[in-house]
Amino acid sequence: MPHPLDSLFAPDSIALIGASRDLEKIPGRLLSMLRKNEFPGKIFPINPNYGDIDGLKCYPAIADVGQPIDLAIVIIPARAVLGALEQCAAAGVKNAVIISSGFAEEGGDSAAMQDAIVALAKNTGMRISGPNAEGFYSQAQRVAATFSPTVGVNPDAPPLEFFEFMVQDASTDVILLFIEGIRDVDKFLAAARRAAEIGKPVIVTKVGRSGAGERAAASHTASMAGWSAAYDAVFAKYGFIVSNDLDEAVTIAAVLTTNPMPKGDRVAVLTVSGGAGIWGADTVAMQGLQVPELSESIQTEIRKLLPSYGAAGNPIDVTAQGVHSGGLQRSIDLLDVSDEVDAILVVLSLSSDTRMPFKQAELKPVLSAQNKPIVFYSYTLPSHFARTEFAASGAVVLSGLTHVGVAMRQMVQRAKFRLAPPAAVAALPPRDISAHLKSATLSEFDSKSLLRDAGIALPDEVLVSYRGELDAAIARAGFPLVMKIQSRDIPHKSEAGGVRVNIASKGEAFAAYQALLESAGRHRPDAAIQGVLVGPMAKKGVEIIVGTLLDATFGPMIMVGLGGITTELFKDVIYRPAPVSAAEASAMLAALKAAPLLNGFRGAAKTDIPALSQLIAQISMLAAQFVTEISEIEINPVLVHPQGQGATIVDALVVRKKG
Amino acid sequence: MPHPLDSLFAPDSIALIGASRDLEKIPGRLLSMLRKNEFPGKIFPINPNYGDIDGLKCYPAIADVGQPIDLAIVIIPARAVLGALEQCAAAGVKNAVIISSGFAEEGGDSAAMQDAIVALAKNTGMRISGPNAEGFYSQAQRVAATFSPTVGVNPDAPPLEFFEFMVQDASTDVILLFIEGIRDVDKFLAAARRAAEIGKPVIVTKVGRSGAGERAAASHTASMAGWSAAYDAVFAKYGFIVSNDLDEAVTIAAVLTTNPMPKGDRVAVLTVSGGAGIWGADTVAMQGLQVPELSESIQTEIRKLLPSYGAAGNPIDVTAQGVHSGGLQRSIDLLDVSDEVDAILVVLSLSSDTRMPFKQAELKPVLSAQNKPIVFYSYTLPSHFARTEFAASGAVVLSGLTHVGVAMRQMVQRAKFRLAPPAAVAALPPRDISAHLKSATLSEFDSKSLLRDAGIALPDEVLVSYRGELDAAIARAGFPLVMKIQSRDIPHKSEAGGVRVNIASKGEAFAAYQALLESAGRHRPDAAIQGVLVGPMAKKGVEIIVGTLLDATFGPMIMVGLGGITTELFKDVIYRPAPVSAAEASAMLAALKAAPLLNGFRGAAKTDIPALSQLIAQISMLAAQFVTEISEIEINPVLVHPQGQGATIVDALVVRKKG
Repeated sequence: MPHPLDSLFAPDSIALIGASRDLEKIPGRLLSMLRKNEFPGKIFPINPNYGDIDGLKCYPAIADVGQPIDLAIVIIPARAVLGALEQCAAAGVKNAVIISSGFAEEGGDSAAMQDAIVALAKNTGMRISGPNAEGFYSQAQRVAATFSPTVGVNPDAPPLEFFEFMVQDASTDVILLFIEGIRDVDKFLAAARRAAEIGKPVIVTKVGRSGAGERAAASHTASMAGWSAAYDAVFAKYGFIVSNDLDEAVTIAAVLTTNPMPKGDRVAVLTVSGGAGIWGADTVAMQGLQVPELSESIQTEIRKLLPSYGAAGNPIDVTAQGVHSGGLQRSIDLLDVSDEVDAILVVLSLSSDTRMPFKQAELKPVLSAQNKPIVFYSYTLPSHFARTEFAASGAVVLSGLTHVGVAMRQMVQRAKFRLAPPAAVAALPPRDISAHLKSATLSEFDSKSLLRDAGIALPDEVLVSYRGELDAAIARAGFPLVMKIQSRDIPHKSEAGGVRVNIASKGEAFAAYQALLESAGRHRPDAAIQGVLVGPMAKKGVEIIVGTLLDATFGPMIMVGLGGITTELFKDVIYRPAPVSAAEASAMLAALKAAPLLNGFRGAAKTDIPALSQLIAQISMLAAQFVTEISEIEINPVLVHPQGQGATIVDALVVRKKG
Repeated sequence: MPHPLDSLFAPDSIALIGASRDLEKIPGRLLSMLRKNEFPGKIFPINPNYGDIDGLKCYPAIADVGQPIDLAIVIIPARAVLGALEQCAAAGVKNAVIISSGFAEEGGDSAAMQDAIVALAKNTGMRISGPNAEGFYSQAQRVAATFSPTVGVNPDAPPLEFFEFMVQDASTDVILLFIEGIRDVDKFLAAARRAAEIGKPVIVTKVGRSGAGERAAASHTASMAGWSAAYDAVFAKYGFIVSNDLDEAVTIAAVLTTNPMPKGDRVAVLTVSGGAGIWGADTVAMQGLQVPELSESIQTEIRKLLPSYGAAGNPIDVTAQGVHSGGLQRSIDLLDVSDEVDAILVVLSLSSDTRMPFKQAELKPVLSAQNKPIVFYSYTLPSHFARTEFAASGAVVLSGLTHVGVAMRQMVQRAKFRLAPPAAVAALPPRDISAHLKSATLSEFDSKSLLRDAGIALPDEVLVSYRGELDAAIARAGFPLVMKIQSRDIPHKSEAGGVRVNIASKGEAFAAYQALLESAGRHRPDAAIQGVLVGPMAKKGVEIIVGTLLDATFGPMIMVGLGGITTELFKDVIYRPAPVSAAEASAMLAALKAAPLLNGFRGAAKTDIPALSQLIAQISMLAAQFVTEISEIEINPVLVHPQGQGATIVDALVVRKKG
């Protein structure tokens, strides 16, 4: 099916508006880049000052070309751009890339010029990338429509659909995405979902993560970099591979495009040098992959292929001699069909221009019969000869051992990725929570009432508004009990001396009631007191925080983390776009560093993860359903009890969205 | 002062025992490597099968050379090596590198051959590297005595002193060290201390960190890889920079050898491309360095150098135009003398073979007047032209942005490194602790008695051996108190129901005494009970673990970590070789991820770090002083109180070293 951007990415003809003979400057370089990369279509330089450039006829204006033009590349001063685009539209040009700078990023009048370009695009249907664009490069179509050789393509300039194009493009196996910020979020999410559904890996670099980076993104593209945790949550949901290093990202792409997916995480490390093999084994092991000792039977087979001072245990040291004897190749063949490992890392030195352990004749049979990933890492700079022979055999020689380790881990994780089925927020019964949102701020009692009405299970608690109600409340809660002051004017109860726990007798309870009111009065004399909330002490459990918030880019997000001070100290929290299903909530819990605490740490009982996951899903759906009414929910803590015993919400706070 | 290894690393003459004409094989490559790298001395090929090789006269045996030989490189079958070495010794050869494999790593008879080589080295004084050696490469002396171009030099083969040589060698600015294991620990530590004293940076790669890596190291060099945490502790003590990635290590070395040390951690990021600048700012910020927004006055100066769409805030986007206008160079000049930043990262594209923002004429003046580190990163593959121009100007063009960020962080940390003054263990009064070490295992009471005798402050506790002593003990401790069963047969008191806390009355105390004895009897009927330890409840404080152990390679180590289950979960512990001074103990505490908890987290009081540091130092000295008697000390927990209120040891265990 043709895509509207086909004529942009695979143009038959390109006009270069502002072409120049000076190869030292950007306009001149655009032409030489196009020709150096052997663009197969027609090129029309446009510049009234020249009759010809570099052997090509040069036209005074776009109207003079008189032939169809698929793409115009615009590199003239900012103030002249709009006029040129209007001429393009009149001449029927389908797409334009504006390299020129000096628009919205400068503010003022310049921003107005950009608005005019957006309006022109809308009115004419011409698809425009930029201004201030880097251009693009398509290896498959031999189109180098950029002045700088970089993989950074800006997917975010509205209303363009670069990312969407690559998702549906059959000649693209893996997508490398560079993001400063996203403007058309819905289009982005739809393409992300589609990529996940068809199993096309996306490797994403998100910049503007630091304070300085955010500042620069705002000045560079006049757009907000956004909150990285929300971006990472979205990336995780769709199985994107996050890489913030260019070489690492390219290594991951190289590994993914040249290998089948692994069935597990067990790696065989084959080496021609003992020390390098240890280094390789360490590196993949540090990434959390297994490097299992091989069984005696396969070791016996491998030993037959090696000199006596080789090693067959894993790492497998075939030694320098083993390369020339063919032991390396035959070891790969053995491991490729073995059920003891899921992937093979070959560590070797390919610096020589003449000496080669592998030539095409030897490599191709190995790789064409390949059952599992075989990754080649050279600890010396690979020679041109080696790279050529490997490339011709369908493999890539990689440099950078840590990047290789990361790539293998990412490949293993990617192989396990399954897109979570959508949480059925639409299926929730419509509820009216407006009665709970009348006051500007909600107390714990207000918040819990809202949650209870929304179907969340909470402990049976009673709001005691005057002393006379206390006896009945005690009888209902039973000892030991907890008592907490309730006031919309006192958001931090503990700091106001507003909480009493482990109350074990009536005398203590009445004393506590009096003391709570007095503390509140001292802390905040003008506070309107709702009463004292009386409930049973919760059973012990693992302290967890569950929360929601509204991200400026992606909307409602759900968060879960280990409770207590360590959460903040170790930053051990996981976010996902809300809503999530219980299954997705379980996966969030498994991703916490503190996950062992839920799974029976140091002999403790395994906790009720299903109950907690269900609660997280419910809270997330509530946030998604009432996205216009609720800005935050914080359940802090919820105590997770042993398996089958559920989870208890101890405290809760709902924050109303400000009109 | 001449070093005994001068004749190895800077030989006037080299004999190649086993030289070959076949350049495809290792022996042949050794000769061609030596000549390709323009070794300036004499080369004597030794092989009875040839009259000459590659234009050089070939000798049947070493005895036939008849001229002095500084170094023999041996690459003949293992069984012939010993004989050849004997001939070398007879001919007065000073040093030998044995490339041949097939010795101790194979075990059996082959190991015996290696023992014979060691004996020969000792008897003759000939210095021998190997067998199974990679050889070495000295750029300064143009000696390529290796068959493979790698930086990995094996510093650990006894009794060699490669590391020591480089520490004292004036032509070596930075040392890259690759370690599988260390055999001569004292020599290693002396060289490490010397390097720290003279301020020569050491970048170390330690392999054999994973299970698979350890297995391989054992089979590869027949040596133990050792416990990485102990290695890392030693590296930290001497300010070594740990890097387990070759490209990263080389990047760090490049940054250190071409720059002055920074005075702080504030980085200016200069870029020719907006997106790349954001990426660069993110990367150094993620490494914990600061990328501060520049003051209005310096921004005004910088803006004069840039086109209107540039950015001066930091990152500073000079734009592609700013490169040609000289704005980039002049911005560097401005930042180099500014007191607002301590280092400069320049992000640019140097892929062009002709176009260059910097040529020698422009670069050299900038770099020769350089006041602070200026690091150049190219986000495209740098051209040969660019690399040559930079190298000639005394700078390096770096690739790999994350490696650059790590290198800048390591440089900042290295600039702050000060070698801790040695802890004065020798100055401790000699103590006799033998009375405490008579039983095979020590109870808490035994352990605390030992510690008290060794001068460690502990709470005043009483061992109650029979009921009649309880009244006096209660009177001494005062309520609330804690009671704990004491038995050398019950190492885990809590699990045996052997601890009661918060006892507030005499009645409770007597009941608890009875209950403790009964629990112990049920748990371990045959346990010999020492009694019940009665003491005051400790004041609240931050829970910390302090421990010592004996590492097989480096001896006594001191450990500190956050107490409670999170220690294990987040692996937040710091080790150092014992003993440490209180100042070094403070530095250990500051290196904990949990350090904020000690420094007044979330409004809590700042804790008594001096008291805790003093305790850590005392425990470490005890471990070092009684290294033949004590194998482990564990203080778990010690509660650290607010500033000025000290720290309280709650529980302690000393483990006797097994004879």
